[in-house]
Amino acid sequence: MELADLGGFAVDLGGTKIAAARIDSGRVVERLLAATDGMAGPEAQMDAMAGLLTRLGHTAGAPLGVGVAGRIDGAGRWCAVNRDTLSAIDGFALQDALRDRLGAATCCNDAAAAALAEARFGAGRDARNFAYLTVSTGIGGGIVLGGRLIESENGLAGHAGFVTSRHAEGPCGSGRRDTVESVAGGRGIAAAAAARGHPGQDARAVIEAAKSGAAWAEDIVATSARAVASLIGDLAAILGLDGVAVGGSIGLAQGYLDRVRASLADEPPLFRPALQAAALGHDGPLLGALALHFAKVSR
Amino acid sequence: MELADLGGFAVDLGGTKIAAARIDSGRVVERLLAATDGMAGPEAQMDAMAGLLTRLGHTAGAPLGVGVAGRIDGAGRWCAVNRDTLSAIDGFALQDALRDRLGAATCCNDAAAAALAEARFGAGRDARNFAYLTVSTGIGGGIVLGGRLIESENGLAGHAGFVTSRHAEGPCGSGRRDTVESVAGGRGIAAAAAARGHPGQDARAVIEAAKSGAAWAEDIVATSARAVASLIGDLAAILGLDGVAVGGSIGLAQGYLDRVRASLADEPPLFRPALQAAALGHDGPLLGALALHFAKVSR
Repeated sequence: MELADLGGFAVDLGGTKIAAARIDSGRVVERLLAATDGMAGPEAQMDAMAGLLTRLGHTAGAPLGVGVAGRIDGAGRWCAVNRDTLSAIDGFALQDALRDRLGAATCCNDAAAAALAEARFGAGRDARNFAYLTVSTGIGGGIVLGGRLIESENGLAGHAGFVTSRHAEGPCGSGRRDTVESVAGGRGIAAAAAARGHPGQDARAVIEAAKSGAAWAEDIVATSARAVASLIGDLAAILGLDGVAVGGSIGLAQGYLDRVRASLADEPPLFRPALQAAALGHDGPLLGALALHFAKVSR
Repeated sequence: MELADLGGFAVDLGGTKIAAARIDSGRVVERLLAATDGMAGPEAQMDAMAGLLTRLGHTAGAPLGVGVAGRIDGAGRWCAVNRDTLSAIDGFALQDALRDRLGAATCCNDAAAAALAEARFGAGRDARNFAYLTVSTGIGGGIVLGGRLIESENGLAGHAGFVTSRHAEGPCGSGRRDTVESVAGGRGIAAAAAARGHPGQDARAVIEAAKSGAAWAEDIVATSARAVASLIGDLAAILGLDGVAVGGSIGLAQGYLDRVRASLADEPPLFRPALQAAALGHDGPLLGALALHFAKVSR
């Protein structure tokens, strides 16, 4: 399917906000945002999504793609992986619930959706073995090989933020320790700031402080970028990547990608795939979720 | 293709030895071994392989699969990834040379071949998202998703030994630093022994010393197993694995897999795929290389 043929509705439920969109001819023509309630149960999350969709003019049966933080298993059940992001999501039958309430709908992980969109329509168009990473509240990812999104029965495939990192030191909401997400994601950045005597600063504030030359903030942001660069080298080793794109509110923050690129320059050429900013920005998860819906429906 | 239908010849050129085999009805019916000369150039490596094959009764045009340490790119060129393993292999047109000299032949990475064999005929038969790791002189790997071997244009896909590790501390022949291979592979184990005042001990000797209760050796082998377990958790995050098999001379050494399993038990369930020993043992790379030959020929 060409981008220009893509029309319908999409939702992107992330760790911080919910975006819902009406998509026409491959473009987001209307978008509504709401804050994510990370403590809310699945029914309340459904209500929040459905409420935004109704305001956009969605009616039952209209094509709908839903990308969410967390994993969607082969049976369409929704589970948080990092329980600090969505604390009350633990096996809810999201695919069935969406179909019952909203008609034709497909749900998937939000970063997997963005990966598919970037691979087909964005920064990964020229890559054969492509990975997308979103650096945001957490670190998400998706892998597209030869045009095909990598999926798994447990829905975990693509969750590259939960890879261990030499730059990390501490617990992660996934239950693992020392993950890339724990040091490089927004929550990890805020925790590092608090640990250095700057409590109450979110990732945005830390990035601003780094730009203003505060050494403590500079160090935290540089460590985040180093951990992401090292993860890209690891993914290159495992997948033989020829392209990587980075998105997310932190990944797309001014100067962040340059830091990742500088760290990646220390890797041998073989472990240094072409690195780009996500070309679709915050539209990626929305366009990808809807594209995946059409791909699944046509199977 | 069923295992029982597999017949022809195969070569497995590893960092330490070359095995050549005659395969009939899916079984290795004759096998010859020679030591690998890691300093030899590609022509000499070709001579060594061809010499073994001739002694096995191979004639030009007989089906032949060749698995080698290092990467084979999309054009069939052979490059060492860890220059400590094969120091003089740097872009040799192996696929063309094999075809010219030996007739119908397909070359691939040795661990990728073993991964395919384990996925189709061995420990990965029940897995949908499967990885194979060989712990030997170096650490190799291969990934098979839905029955399909993951390949890449640069031939690097599957080289999981070059992922960075929190358990490593030092250079790697790949040019990266702090890789799983550098701490967990045979060369890394021997180097660790030397650094602790036990020079001239190879991995086999260190494993024996660990069995005899030598604390220094115990510590080195335990660290190797911990690094491999952590890598399995990382691969589970990236690929949503439901099965992993470990092979190789160290991986199959008595007690090693139990150590990996014990370390893996510390991971959350989601990051702990079913772990098995390679079911095909040292036949895996041979059977897989020949199976891949038939798969490529029939495309």
